[in-house]
Amino acid sequence: MSEPTPRVCDTLAEVRTRNPLVHSITNLVAMDLSANVLLAVGASPVMAHAREEIDEVVAAANALVINIGTLDAGWVDSMEQAAAKASELGTPWVLDPVGVGATRYRNEVAARLTAQQPTVIRGNGSEIVALANAASAGATRGVDSSIDSAEALDAARDLAQASQAIVAVTGSVDYITDGSRVIAVANGVPEMAQITAMGCALSGLVGACIGVGTEPLRASAHAIAIYGVAGELAAQHAHGPGSLRMRMLDAFTQLDSETLNEMASIDQ
Amino acid sequence: MSEPTPRVCDTLAEVRTRNPLVHSITNLVAMDLSANVLLAVGASPVMAHAREEIDEVVAAANALVINIGTLDAGWVDSMEQAAAKASELGTPWVLDPVGVGATRYRNEVAARLTAQQPTVIRGNGSEIVALANAASAGATRGVDSSIDSAEALDAARDLAQASQAIVAVTGSVDYITDGSRVIAVANGVPEMAQITAMGCALSGLVGACIGVGTEPLRASAHAIAIYGVAGELAAQHAHGPGSLRMRMLDAFTQLDSETLNEMASIDQ
Amino acid sequence: MSEPTPRVCDTLAEVRTRNPLVHSITNLVAMDLSANVLLAVGASPVMAHAREEIDEVVAAANALVINIGTLDAGWVDSMEQAAAKASELGTPWVLDPVGVGATRYRNEVAARLTAQQPTVIRGNGSEIVALANAASAGATRGVDSSIDSAEALDAARDLAQASQAIVAVTGSVDYITDGSRVIAVANGVPEMAQITAMGCALSGLVGACIGVGTEPLRASAHAIAIYGVAGELAAQHAHGPGSLRMRMLDAFTQLDSETLNEMASIDQ
Repeated sequence: MSEPTPRVCDTLAEVRTRNPLVHSITNLVAMDLSANVLLAVGASPVMAHAREEIDEVVAAANALVINIGTLDAGWVDSMEQAAAKASELGTPWVLDPVGVGATRYRNEVAARLTAQQPTVIRGNGSEIVALANAASAGATRGVDSSIDSAEALDAARDLAQASQAIVAVTGSVDYITDGSRVIAVANGVPEMAQITAMGCALSGLVGACIGVGTEPLRASAHAIAIYGVAGELAAQHAHGPGSLRMRMLDAFTQLDSETLNEMASIDQ
Repeated sequence: MSEPTPRVCDTLAEVRTRNPLVHSITNLVAMDLSANVLLAVGASPVMAHAREEIDEVVAAANALVINIGTLDAGWVDSMEQAAAKASELGTPWVLDPVGVGATRYRNEVAARLTAQQPTVIRGNGSEIVALANAASAGATRGVDSSIDSAEALDAARDLAQASQAIVAVTGSVDYITDGSRVIAVANGVPEMAQITAMGCALSGLVGACIGVGTEPLRASAHAIAIYGVAGELAAQHAHGPGSLRMRMLDAFTQLDSETLNEMASIDQ
Repeated sequence: MSEPTPRVCDTLAEVRTRNPLVHSITNLVAMDLSANVLLAVGASPVMAHAREEIDEVVAAANALVINIGTLDAGWVDSMEQAAAKASELGTPWVLDPVGVGATRYRNEVAARLTAQQPTVIRGNGSEIVALANAASAGATRGVDSSIDSAEALDAARDLAQASQAIVAVTGSVDYITDGSRVIAVANGVPEMAQITAMGCALSGLVGACIGVGTEPLRASAHAIAIYGVAGELAAQHAHGPGSLRMRMLDAFTQLDSETLNEMASIDQ
């Protein structure tokens, strides 16, 4: 008899109970929201990027999240060191390749990090298409930033196969794939795109969910569903991006298992 | 027959329709609010400061915003490279000389950036007086941080003439000048000064408005009026700086042309 | 006849009247909240970390706050320069040793900064125990991050005696000690721990209160009580960490002397 499949509420309960330590090397815009989402959901964020201490922080963490949004040479060194340490220790880690496709530098850095075997790669349609190109061919092309998730699904599958990572491409519907299986999640509201760092903070939540040991394909889908449901709940009483952001943070702490299971739209 | 003068609602409509990409090299305190204001108003923020990618990001952007609030040597190099590239390409750009007058280092950096031909310079009264001194004389003096915008109007005119930039000096009334013409904007509420990065995020909005091609003198006045009107709307139901900030972000998305034209106080 | 003892409302009134300039070299996660708390309470925040200007900024400031949350080599150089300048000039300064005990690097940096004679050291129970070890013995041990303030009181007294600083250890009850006297503050709500940078922003407020010249032991207790009372007021109408944070910022501006004196729980 196989282990019963964990439901989305089980993953949230695990995060709340076990308070995973999530080490984030993220961009300067996303730090505040990322840390607040992690705290609201019950995880423990730690932001640390000094090369002198990265190995110790990775070793203490249950998961690592690397986000290249405001990269520079010093931070890239730290990201590579952290990724190498996580891979060495078997610590699960998430790569958020923000803006890949926009510049050659981002393409190179994202390709190098992808080669370090992330557990999960999360990006929007344009980023996943660009990264699939950058990681496979070296040569990259200009990217239309309006590629939606569905159009990027083939690229996501290719990238998952090439990188051996779970690839999550988020958009109007979110797709999570290991290269063969695909889970579709249809939660969230479009207004979430009017809030900066929304995707980055979601990558942090993916880190929390893989940090409690849930199988990464499922953990990523659960994180994305939890996030979207919180957005939907928040949107019920929001009047714009300011109140939506505030109410999402509230919603993470209020969310109960029944509501979550009922609202989560996870199709596999 | 001359082109009809764009009204403030036209500038906002252009931003919402064309979603200008605004490249911001801003201070560490202002990143979150600046990005959120740009998103709420319909623009697309991109934060990037690595020298390896700055030229490509500037080339892709509709406008550039440079803010020296938390400068250091590495970031100043990036700012100068970005300013040079913007000037080379004819990309309009905004200089926000935060804290100029407070230290010799800020004076030197702000003077060097001013020499790179910003399209618009936006600061408070003390900053504009200090920058007028720093840019013209090299020698600077201590600055009384309580200089209001009206007292700085002469300095603003001088600075505009010397730098060939539009100069916007914000305070109890905001003045925007090209060295001869002066537009006065009387919107906003005093409580906005209790929120960090309010001026910085306004400079970002100026970037969005010059990024859609509106003539810079008028675009700056429009940005400042839109910002002030959003603040006034938000203040109607705010109880302090926390709720004022949240409601301002909501107000940017709710603002309709009729309300904006009615409330905007633009005197030219 | 001795000077009458200032009450907590007197300290808040002094901050509101004198608007102390608080120079913060703080972590990247805490910048936004720290600056907003300082503004809401009536102080003037300035964030500056470039070595080229640190001496001038420290010289202009009424207080300095150093927080090692996202330290790296460049920032540590700035912190040490600022601490040295503050000590030279007699400017009161606060050390917030975020995460000390977690890595050898943090232990070394925190110990070096402690040796530079901070006026106040504020941390949670685990940090104060770790710093007491790091500052005295050089050798450090792993730290249980769940040490509550009461368990850390002996370490706080030892650290205060060894460092000649006031030590504030915050937790379910907050203790402030000069090594012999102990003041206990019992304000705040547990939900404040679900908001990132809450402790960091409190350290900023301690800076504001010592920056108006109140005796540091009492100023620290007053800052901690003001902060906790704002949290209690905010919690009356909050529904989670998003609204709690927003309402705390509002509460700082609304707080009147009568309410503050009535709600402040300061036991000496």
